[in-house]
Amino acid sequence: MPQGQPTSVPNDGLTTRQRRNRPLLMVHTGEMKGKSTSAFGLALRGWNQGWSIGVFQFVKSAKWKVGEEEAFKALGRVHDETGAGGPVEWHKMGEGWSWTRKQGTEQDHATAALEGWHEISRRIADGRHGLYVLDEFTYPMHWGWVDVDEVVATLKDRPGHQHVVITGRYAPPALLEAADLVVEMSKVKHPMDDGQKGQKGIEW
Amino acid sequence: MPQGQPTSVPNDGLTTRQRRNRPLLMVHTGEMKGKSTSAFGLALRGWNQGWSIGVFQFVKSAKWKVGEEEAFKALGRVHDETGAGGPVEWHKMGEGWSWTRKQGTEQDHATAALEGWHEISRRIADGRHGLYVLDEFTYPMHWGWVDVDEVVATLKDRPGHQHVVITGRYAPPALLEAADLVVEMSKVKHPMDDGQKGQKGIEW
Repeated sequence: MPQGQPTSVPNDGLTTRQRRNRPLLMVHTGEMKGKSTSAFGLALRGWNQGWSIGVFQFVKSAKWKVGEEEAFKALGRVHDETGAGGPVEWHKMGEGWSWTRKQGTEQDHATAALEGWHEISRRIADGRHGLYVLDEFTYPMHWGWVDVDEVVATLKDRPGHQHVVITGRYAPPALLEAADLVVEMSKVKHPMDDGQKGQKGIEW
Repeated sequence: MPQGQPTSVPNDGLTTRQRRNRPLLMVHTGEMKGKSTSAFGLALRGWNQGWSIGVFQFVKSAKWKVGEEEAFKALGRVHDETGAGGPVEWHKMGEGWSWTRKQGTEQDHATAALEGWHEISRRIADGRHGLYVLDEFTYPMHWGWVDVDEVVATLKDRPGHQHVVITGRYAPPALLEAADLVVEMSKVKHPMDDGQKGQKGIEW
């Protein structure tokens, strides 16, 4: 990979090494697909570094299953069996968070989203994962189910070396402000404009 | 996953099913990182569908190694051993294409890029892969090493059901014109602006 060069050197009292290894808060937003796909691609790199990968999907339905889920579960098994890469945990709101006792039962999405965030917050305090993928986590914040200021404060103060990537449209301004990296996916051309529906392997 | 709905129904003589299953030519371009990451994320989905994944990286140096390479090789082994997912081939120009006899020897990049394209063209004619990731393939076209019109003609006439995703800056207009889907990654905020260098696991 080409190694990017910074355009300026900041006066922040950090050595280049300290700055280089700063844990990042990343946000993938914009109108276009690719936000989650790109986050999972990033998680592939992290897996290869041996990081513990924690995926938390804030999707409403257990049916919203992406191909990456099976692939990462396979990579998690590769790690467990051979030691290659890192461990993988994949949690999905829509099927009931695995750490609650409410699996499969109906509960309102706002409560479920908040429970998801509280667990993530506990894990961040414990330094559990090397990379958190908080997929579609912008929506619970956008809808007011999870307090943006609390999220930002928790993320800003997170201990150790934990990277976080958050995906979804309508990323709150306070989150963008706190982020180290923001990527916006813009549509230039999309087959749905030509009347094509989504297809497996491409859209999910 | 939310299933997108088309905004119009085209008058192209195809059934919805035929249209849905149309193989796609996708281009990930723009100034921002995420183009390749997102393409590899897409390949994860394809792998999970059991597609044969062919990755062709048009990078100049064997040292440009991304974390996805090891992860996909691990997934390829998972397929070979358990039958899960699809087979994976990963080819890299910078280390000498595996199908030529020139591995490890010096040859100019233009020749190497053209040899890469010729092999891809043969594989497309044979219907070898379900998804081709032509990583950083825009550059050989941009620099005139590979003829854009020939690429577009080959891709437009490709047989069977082969998806293609091409990444890189400076995507030629004729390629964008031919593409079904174009995603442009735009920078909103990047840590290198603050003097941070790239770090492993994030940038490669």
